[in-house]
Amino acid sequence: MVVGSVALDTVKTPLGRGKEVLGGSATYFSISASFFNPVNLVAVVGSDFPSRHLQTLKKQGVDLGGLLVEKGKTFRWDGEYGWDFADPKTLSTCLNVFSKFNPQIPREYKKSKYLFLANIDPQIQEKVLKQVNPKLVACDTMNYWIQNKRNHLLRLLNKVDIFLLNESELRLLTHQNSIVKAAKELTRLGPEIVIVKKGEHGSLLFCDRYMFSIPAFLLESVVDPTGAGDTFAGGVIGYLAQCNKFTPLNFKRALVYGAVMATFAVEDFSVKRLLAINRRDINRRFKQFQALSCF
Amino acid sequence: MVVGSVALDTVKTPLGRGKEVLGGSATYFSISASFFNPVNLVAVVGSDFPSRHLQTLKKQGVDLGGLLVEKGKTFRWDGEYGWDFADPKTLSTCLNVFSKFNPQIPREYKKSKYLFLANIDPQIQEKVLKQVNPKLVACDTMNYWIQNKRNHLLRLLNKVDIFLLNESELRLLTHQNSIVKAAKELTRLGPEIVIVKKGEHGSLLFCDRYMFSIPAFLLESVVDPTGAGDTFAGGVIGYLAQCNKFTPLNFKRALVYGAVMATFAVEDFSVKRLLAINRRDINRRFKQFQALSCF
Repeated sequence: MVVGSVALDTVKTPLGRGKEVLGGSATYFSISASFFNPVNLVAVVGSDFPSRHLQTLKKQGVDLGGLLVEKGKTFRWDGEYGWDFADPKTLSTCLNVFSKFNPQIPREYKKSKYLFLANIDPQIQEKVLKQVNPKLVACDTMNYWIQNKRNHLLRLLNKVDIFLLNESELRLLTHQNSIVKAAKELTRLGPEIVIVKKGEHGSLLFCDRYMFSIPAFLLESVVDPTGAGDTFAGGVIGYLAQCNKFTPLNFKRALVYGAVMATFAVEDFSVKRLLAINRRDINRRFKQFQALSCF
Repeated sequence: MVVGSVALDTVKTPLGRGKEVLGGSATYFSISASFFNPVNLVAVVGSDFPSRHLQTLKKQGVDLGGLLVEKGKTFRWDGEYGWDFADPKTLSTCLNVFSKFNPQIPREYKKSKYLFLANIDPQIQEKVLKQVNPKLVACDTMNYWIQNKRNHLLRLLNKVDIFLLNESELRLLTHQNSIVKAAKELTRLGPEIVIVKKGEHGSLLFCDRYMFSIPAFLLESVVDPTGAGDTFAGGVIGYLAQCNKFTPLNFKRALVYGAVMATFAVEDFSVKRLLAINRRDINRRFKQFQALSCF
């Protein structure tokens, strides 16, 4: 189960433009995770949300029983990337129906064993946690919540098993310069596992007993990095749910599957590329990753 | 054989200070490579160069038959690192005797099979090449030469087998944003192999037939990053010379040994830590690297 946003994104990159395309953290996560395990989606859209997008998600095996359609407009984000494809410039954010998002977990979702709390207000993430009791809880966040709802976020982290964040969020949260020290500090705040997303530089995993360092997959060209982090999380949690057993090797491979899914996501606008691949493509890229980095 | 600088560095980092400590590209390279193979050093120092440093290098198995001692002062560099341990601020550079460095390769060095041209003027690097005929030539450079001696550098690259550079130098040289495209472009300019140093984010290797991506080793704290790149090169070329056989696996492991050596170098000022380790420490860290990143 994933709780997060489903949005319509307008994205400009040096290589093109996507206008009101399917986006949102829960969208990227669920399409990515759907290659490994069935996904239950909890989110809200407006009455203007194109029904073809609903069909797309359903066809991918994403259950929409938790997707509320409310009167009003769907969450819209408008952003632009420069040549470095780093942090985009946000041109506008219209929360619309998402501003009153109050997730109610359908009864049939309560048996979900794996939960991903995508980047939303930590108070809402906590409200979700009160309604369920999964085997594993993973969560994401963003600079805004670290700066403006720090205490709520810290309280939430106490109830989370896996915390995913990027380097700048890690530094902002811990005021530590050393990534290793910062991540270890975070594991003492609740999450057994801290995963640090480094974008084109790979990812790191920290827990009490071990650390992993996964290099970047080498892509010749990136078209649109939107959703890479949520797609990564979808691969990580989807693969863990598929294994349903928490060994060090499974965690390591989960990171690699996360990276593999993210490489597909950035090869085209919106979820276009993710919808065009199959499990064989994923396995092929996993093997390429092995050839690239194992010694 | 390595041709480069031997210097006295004054380095300030947030964790301390080293005053007139042993430094220079050829110093770091030769001490690092000496763990894998005997090293012939070609460089110049002034008459003020402390003889204890000569003893240090000799004890490490570095041949000093190519080290000129000239009347005058040794090359001095004074720099300062911030908390991010990224590019240091150079406070002063006094080339002194190094400004007239005109390397003459001793006859007994001419049978060296592996040559590393550390970061010096590409015209001097070319002069060295004219005196020898090694099995493998590797070279390093820096922003200054890319900007001010571009044509000389490009001519040199045509005669080089392995070219090592960092990300910003790669972008400066190729005007390409994609690292993959940039590195591939460079392999068409001469060097069969391009190695991109990404500091704390690991390293990449590109050639016609394959690519490698090595993640960073996770260090809890860095004391002084000076010389990390040359120490890395010493591990890479030293290990290749030890293998003396160019298989993909050897190249991959060479990158890892390079990274391993660099992690030692940054754990203390100058070459202190490098002088305190043995081959068993290196092998132990190599295995830790494997556990950290192979899946």
